[in-house]
Amino acid sequence: MIPAPVDRLVDQLARLPGVGRRTATRFAFHIIDQDDEYPRELAAALIAASDDVGPCPRCGFLTEVQPCALCADPKRDDALLCVVEGTPEVVAIEGTGAYRGRYHTLGGVLSPLEGIGPDRLRFEGLVERVDRDGVEEVVVATQASVDGEATAHFLASMLKGRAVEVTRIASGLPIGASLEHADHMTLARALEGRRPMD
Amino acid sequence: MIPAPVDRLVDQLARLPGVGRRTATRFAFHIIDQDDEYPRELAAALIAASDDVGPCPRCGFLTEVQPCALCADPKRDDALLCVVEGTPEVVAIEGTGAYRGRYHTLGGVLSPLEGIGPDRLRFEGLVERVDRDGVEEVVVATQASVDGEATAHFLASMLKGRAVEVTRIASGLPIGASLEHADHMTLARALEGRRPMD
Repeated sequence: MIPAPVDRLVDQLARLPGVGRRTATRFAFHIIDQDDEYPRELAAALIAASDDVGPCPRCGFLTEVQPCALCADPKRDDALLCVVEGTPEVVAIEGTGAYRGRYHTLGGVLSPLEGIGPDRLRFEGLVERVDRDGVEEVVVATQASVDGEATAHFLASMLKGRAVEVTRIASGLPIGASLEHADHMTLARALEGRRPMD
Repeated sequence: MIPAPVDRLVDQLARLPGVGRRTATRFAFHIIDQDDEYPRELAAALIAASDDVGPCPRCGFLTEVQPCALCADPKRDDALLCVVEGTPEVVAIEGTGAYRGRYHTLGGVLSPLEGIGPDRLRFEGLVERVDRDGVEEVVVATQASVDGEATAHFLASMLKGRAVEVTRIASGLPIGASLEHADHMTLARALEGRRPMD
């Protein structure tokens, strides 16, 4: 029923995160049904982004310039290093305006189930940076999942014995969330992580 | 924060149906973070689909061959013509296996709010087909929305006086849906459209 070139486009679109074949099919028909320009504009944007953007050799953040603006910024605190999974997490943390240190992206989290071991992530460069750049605190900001926790623990044990403090971002209730609807794990973490009030 | 080429890719991805900037940003980072092949494969699939697929001159269905397989199939009933908005709707109806007639796609529905008048849709070719191909019944299968209904009524009035029966697909409760959760309009339609039981 569906023309082969559209079907092949569906295959490619279905590789996007959270996009199944049904949504990919809707995307494909929408793209083809548009004026003739859209498929070409989207294709050109894909090629340009792929060609002109790459990981910063220092922190791994996706950037057009090398090193990236975050690594090049002289006003950032070299003693503070935040370890995240990838570029979207850097963008999220920068969005808070609450962090002024440097970043290091791992390129994912450890995941035995998906066959992602330490050799697949950028751990080595991190140790080098800690040794070389006078880092005093490593803030581990991997996700609050089993894999994210395992990665954080791996990192902490890797840096053990070095003159650097390793901290972990807090888990707990999201702002605005009710206790009633929180899952048990989150609520347990929120209790466990309680802090004295000023 | 986000490199300009990624930002331009986000602009293009945000034109997909139901995709906001947040999802488009997630798609963009995913695409760039993949192995180098994916952006190129997706771009190539876009160009190929755009170049090799076009509307069937007869029914408007997107196809690689002209006329499309549905129009060329000699086993289809020429006397029965189903009018739909576009290619996804043809695919959906074909998926049921419950229809053996021909199709005509309009390329959308009338929408005064979006400035889509009769001149923007393929009404003319439809009248020609009815006059020429011995169509006995036109099944109007536009969506059950205000615009879809208006389009169906416009079509019926356009075909008035011709020796062709114009029917409308049924509105009512979806299979498996409870009365309790149905909206008032759907339930009213289901009541209005009641039929004697065999």
